[in-house]
Amino acid sequence: MREIFEAELKQVGDDLVEMSTLVVQAIDKAGRALLGANLALAQEVIVADQAIDSIEQDLDERCVLLLAQQAPVATDLRVVVSALRMSATLERMGDLARHIAEIARGRYPSPATPALRDTFEAMHEAATRAARRVEHVLTTHELEGAEEIERDDQVLDDLHQGTFAAMLGGTWEAGPQETVDVTLLSRYYERFGDHAVSIAHRVTFLVTGEFVNAAHSEPESGSND
Amino acid sequence: MREIFEAELKQVGDDLVEMSTLVVQAIDKAGRALLGANLALAQEVIVADQAIDSIEQDLDERCVLLLAQQAPVATDLRVVVSALRMSATLERMGDLARHIAEIARGRYPSPATPALRDTFEAMHEAATRAARRVEHVLTTHELEGAEEIERDDQVLDDLHQGTFAAMLGGTWEAGPQETVDVTLLSRYYERFGDHAVSIAHRVTFLVTGEFVNAAHSEPESGSND
Repeated sequence: MREIFEAELKQVGDDLVEMSTLVVQAIDKAGRALLGANLALAQEVIVADQAIDSIEQDLDERCVLLLAQQAPVATDLRVVVSALRMSATLERMGDLARHIAEIARGRYPSPATPALRDTFEAMHEAATRAARRVEHVLTTHELEGAEEIERDDQVLDDLHQGTFAAMLGGTWEAGPQETVDVTLLSRYYERFGDHAVSIAHRVTFLVTGEFVNAAHSEPESGSND
Repeated sequence: MREIFEAELKQVGDDLVEMSTLVVQAIDKAGRALLGANLALAQEVIVADQAIDSIEQDLDERCVLLLAQQAPVATDLRVVVSALRMSATLERMGDLARHIAEIARGRYPSPATPALRDTFEAMHEAATRAARRVEHVLTTHELEGAEEIERDDQVLDDLHQGTFAAMLGGTWEAGPQETVDVTLLSRYYERFGDHAVSIAHRVTFLVTGEFVNAAHSEPESGSND
């Protein structure tokens, strides 16, 4: 039984890594589509999101079967429950990349955020870096990566606050379309960072057994107000 | 064993109902705080969100214990896994209500959305109605309520599209602060509706065994682009 369990658990872990690899590609392409007003790249992200959703469904089904057939307890059980949570988080990271690509597509052939291009370049870099670290942490279970993800998230939070400061500082001259786009894009990036941290905390918990307040690192909490 | 399982499962169901009751209060008060520029109500929502988060953590812990001690299979297992998912969804509905309250608080003593007051009154009504139906469906498992939630969500989607049409139609004269607020508030309400539908689908699945494409009713999917 133990060997079967280990093999099935490995497959769950492989699925999570595969999802994270697709999320890296999605957020990288979405950002490049946004910054380069690249319609083809945006389309790729939108189409590829279905693959992420599909792995999530397979992974969830696999976890349910694993619970049913192996009835894991203690740490093993927590690994399976965490995998269910992390697959949902990765699926949402894919959705956020798709939303960014959808805005890039909607403004094509114009760039979506000419007034804050530098800010969104920095957001793109921090989000892509965080996604790569999520992939690395899920692959290796090395915890240094988890701490670095927190720093990427802090960068995203600061940039997010910066977009609001820019829009509300009294000198903002862009029209409503760009204001709407900046508001949504900034929020998507900020939440992408929250999700990355959520995964970092869950992996840390699985490795160390110590819960780094993962509930409060969930998406939505602590975001803009 | 079966009796213990049933008793524990009932407690999980009771927790979900309790969370949904708090979500009804949160979204109702948040909307009234927004429409009435009512600081005290906004504060109540922000403080009360911690109670929702706390029940979610208890419920998740209870589900993990239930899986460990009872090792449920088949339908019982799916009930527990669905409860885990629904508690996360209710927690996020509470977060969205809190975000609405935070914007109301941030603009106090001014109203946040003077230009689209009628729209946000209608969103408030539809979201509160959907939350009440979620509470009812979780309490009774009657499926008519689930279908009605889909209609509330459609109302929210249409209103959401309407806010974008209003802002981008060429006659929008509000400043950046209101544009940002309307963009975020509209998205919060639209997503609140998505979450309500996600719960409706999960309850429908549990009652009928038929999966109403719950994965695609998840938050984020199908939202604004």
